[in-house]
Amino acid sequence: MPETLDQYMEQKKQMIYEEMRRYLAHTQIPNQLRESMLYSIEAGGKRLRPILLTASYETYHNEPEKVLSVAIALEMIHTYSLIHDDLPSMDDDDYRRGRLTNHRVFDEATAILAGDALLTYSFEIIAGDRSLTDVQKTTIMRMLAKASGPKGMVAGQTLDMKAEDHVITLEELEDIHTRKTGGLIRFAVKAGAYIGGAADYQLKHLDEFAHLLGLIFQVQDDILDVIGDEEKLGKPVGSDETNHKSTYPGLLGLDGAKARKANYTDKAKAALKAADAEDSYLMLLTNYFSSRDH
Amino acid sequence: MPETLDQYMEQKKQMIYEEMRRYLAHTQIPNQLRESMLYSIEAGGKRLRPILLTASYETYHNEPEKVLSVAIALEMIHTYSLIHDDLPSMDDDDYRRGRLTNHRVFDEATAILAGDALLTYSFEIIAGDRSLTDVQKTTIMRMLAKASGPKGMVAGQTLDMKAEDHVITLEELEDIHTRKTGGLIRFAVKAGAYIGGAADYQLKHLDEFAHLLGLIFQVQDDILDVIGDEEKLGKPVGSDETNHKSTYPGLLGLDGAKARKANYTDKAKAALKAADAEDSYLMLLTNYFSSRDH
Repeated sequence: MPETLDQYMEQKKQMIYEEMRRYLAHTQIPNQLRESMLYSIEAGGKRLRPILLTASYETYHNEPEKVLSVAIALEMIHTYSLIHDDLPSMDDDDYRRGRLTNHRVFDEATAILAGDALLTYSFEIIAGDRSLTDVQKTTIMRMLAKASGPKGMVAGQTLDMKAEDHVITLEELEDIHTRKTGGLIRFAVKAGAYIGGAADYQLKHLDEFAHLLGLIFQVQDDILDVIGDEEKLGKPVGSDETNHKSTYPGLLGLDGAKARKANYTDKAKAALKAADAEDSYLMLLTNYFSSRDH
Repeated sequence: MPETLDQYMEQKKQMIYEEMRRYLAHTQIPNQLRESMLYSIEAGGKRLRPILLTASYETYHNEPEKVLSVAIALEMIHTYSLIHDDLPSMDDDDYRRGRLTNHRVFDEATAILAGDALLTYSFEIIAGDRSLTDVQKTTIMRMLAKASGPKGMVAGQTLDMKAEDHVITLEELEDIHTRKTGGLIRFAVKAGAYIGGAADYQLKHLDEFAHLLGLIFQVQDDILDVIGDEEKLGKPVGSDETNHKSTYPGLLGLDGAKARKANYTDKAKAALKAADAEDSYLMLLTNYFSSRDH
């Protein structure tokens, strides 16, 4: 067993990466498409979502290979969303995590198809998983599709693009983040605990926890764009201001944003305690989300 | 009960359209995204795939509302593929079925997101369906994801784009079509019969039938691009030649393509008989696929 959060995260990260590579090696996938999918998978960062899912599962049950396919499906959906968000007609980003974006290495058509393929593959992987029951699989796929589809992540991206270049309220900002980044974070926590067999009252508190964790993630993201280290972040800071994006520091000031983050973190920890998860990696991950520097 | 195939198709078409509208009316979908999704759903054509699915189901069981959610999920995936295929970086089409393409009415970003949303929503709809068992749902979702993902439709589109501007063999051409258009047609027939409770030997023959039906569809598509009526087709003819696309008439001559279609049609009908489906709408639909003028 790993002892520190760093060791835990490193171990899971390796496991997730190898499993994703294994799935992408399937011979029926055309090479050009595979290379494009693999490129963005390999460019992948901290694997926070699948690690969160595994940590949530292990809080209630210890047999981590059981959630591996759901974990990588989740990371594939996250990766697809980054590929499509970076496209010229969307955020038009040339770099992500210090590497050229998918459409800059391949072409735009291939990047769109690689995203479509990762999204679709994730459902094939869960549906074909052998360690989950059919009820678990349909429940999980419904949650995942809802979190990523037209009521969730795609809605968030639509609203986010519409919100550019004009000031929105804090309420609107939180609605966008809840859908755009919050959805998959919430899915990670809830799906892990659900498969782990958490009780209804635990799931209820975890849902509250996951909602807050998504917001903590976003506040910290906005703060890092103001005071972060470009080298550690792998991207230029100050881009939110340049792009006239509504952010927590923009709406509340830097100190206000920090205070809000502290408030969310306290509440998130209280929710974790209520879900009997105060001794789990979820607690350590909450600190990590709140104080990460990249 | 409808009497002619026309009546049958018209009745199903109406049912499918209304059900899709009902799902897209969900209040959590942002308006701009909904409008873009709806635009392409409303521009929709003959609904051949969901009609095929219903006809296949009704060959073995009569309770058509049971497959309605799978039918519309299938049509949503087909619609998403058209939206993405039309994009400037892909086939760069301004018109489809005589109407402006999605990205020409909205913008490119919205069109990409509408496609992503339709794809994801289709899995949410099947996973949330109340008339199917969990085993049926996971089986169906696995088949559907496999038919549309990196081994199926997305692979077909990747290979199709790569094949442009150079001559390919008939074998390569059929591999592309089998994946790009054949996958969803095959899914329609197999999923309908599976939910309808067809026996294993019937499913085996239907799989052969569906494979041939996909090829018949494509040969006829290529033939119509040579001798079709532009007004009925809602698109210019001769575009395959202009775009240097490999086609059946291009590889076999017009007569050769027609002979091949006749051969596939005979074999398809024999497979239908072997599946005890010679008196079903599938038989009439085979004639329709083979002789359609639009």
